[in-house]
Amino acid sequence: MEALKQKILEEGKGIGKDIVKVDMFLNHRIDTKLLFAMGEAWAEEFRDEKPDLVLTVEASGIAMAVAAAHALGDLPVVFAKKSNTAVLTSETVQAGVYSFTHKTQNIIRIERRYLPEGSRVLIIDDFLADGQAVNGMMNLCEQQKAQVVGVGIAIEKGFQPGGQQLRDAGVHVKSLAIVDRIENGKIVLRPDGD
Amino acid sequence: MEALKQKILEEGKGIGKDIVKVDMFLNHRIDTKLLFAMGEAWAEEFRDEKPDLVLTVEASGIAMAVAAAHALGDLPVVFAKKSNTAVLTSETVQAGVYSFTHKTQNIIRIERRYLPEGSRVLIIDDFLADGQAVNGMMNLCEQQKAQVVGVGIAIEKGFQPGGQQLRDAGVHVKSLAIVDRIENGKIVLRPDGD
Repeated sequence: MEALKQKILEEGKGIGKDIVKVDMFLNHRIDTKLLFAMGEAWAEEFRDEKPDLVLTVEASGIAMAVAAAHALGDLPVVFAKKSNTAVLTSETVQAGVYSFTHKTQNIIRIERRYLPEGSRVLIIDDFLADGQAVNGMMNLCEQQKAQVVGVGIAIEKGFQPGGQQLRDAGVHVKSLAIVDRIENGKIVLRPDGD
Repeated sequence: MEALKQKILEEGKGIGKDIVKVDMFLNHRIDTKLLFAMGEAWAEEFRDEKPDLVLTVEASGIAMAVAAAHALGDLPVVFAKKSNTAVLTSETVQAGVYSFTHKTQNIIRIERRYLPEGSRVLIIDDFLADGQAVNGMMNLCEQQKAQVVGVGIAIEKGFQPGGQQLRDAGVHVKSLAIVDRIENGKIVLRPDGD
């Protein structure tokens, strides 16, 4: 998506070999106009998959999920909650998400009734790198017998394996921008989204 | 705001004397159509205050801040991040927020450059009870010499002191619904918002 790519190149910062810092417009301060344009781009890609629910995980995925859900005709949004502890109850479903960045295992959790059996779920998230968060959300859907009809990502780190693994598994993935590599603090994007 | 009040009465649950459970449409699953109508209601209330930035705190405030910012012409949204630890750096500003619910002290934090001196800030949050979160955000604004031009709340607990204290201090507060009390699991609303 051209507007997002422009913004990444103009304002984003590459740190080290794998950190893409975009908190000036995406995940701390939000450029609201760009956000809603991103929502439209995901809606265009996934409308034909007829999702009936948008799923994300707190916190930074929420704004993007809301924008996508709005563009798709105000679908409900459900956001999984993060916590450090596993607490099994009959009312909630949970999955483990390992963070390579922080080297910690987190739990994401949803109340079962908000992810009903048979739902057609569009997963939205800000980043896709190792795919741990998306895999955790897909795991929640699988446990609930809900169907993942698409995965919409703002920025995919193309040099990490998550995106390719999802595509190889036949998942409909759309990343609005793909970072090919970081060179001397400069973010290099792939010519096309995905 | 009529639509929100209806929804609270139809689907919300009162627990004990002070818990208002609305996670079926507001802060776990989100009713997106209602969310954007709430954004319009805040925009109508605060447009004349000419905010240039919407401030909230992760996680459940984000969706509401985005809806309000969109209705106000796509203002930028900044969300404070929560953490357990105080880390003083020259780049961030932070404030303590005591949670009466969890009996814990949290820190909320923003990168200074995203809350510039002289900004006209509209604070948006899902709940107002003791006022701790709003006071923490006002504290961040004060440290940054930004001006709080309004505080928009989805649900105020009228039986707790936060809202009254803000109004007594001359702050322009708009709560879209005010809970007067909880009686035998039933949520009783005040006839008007505020």
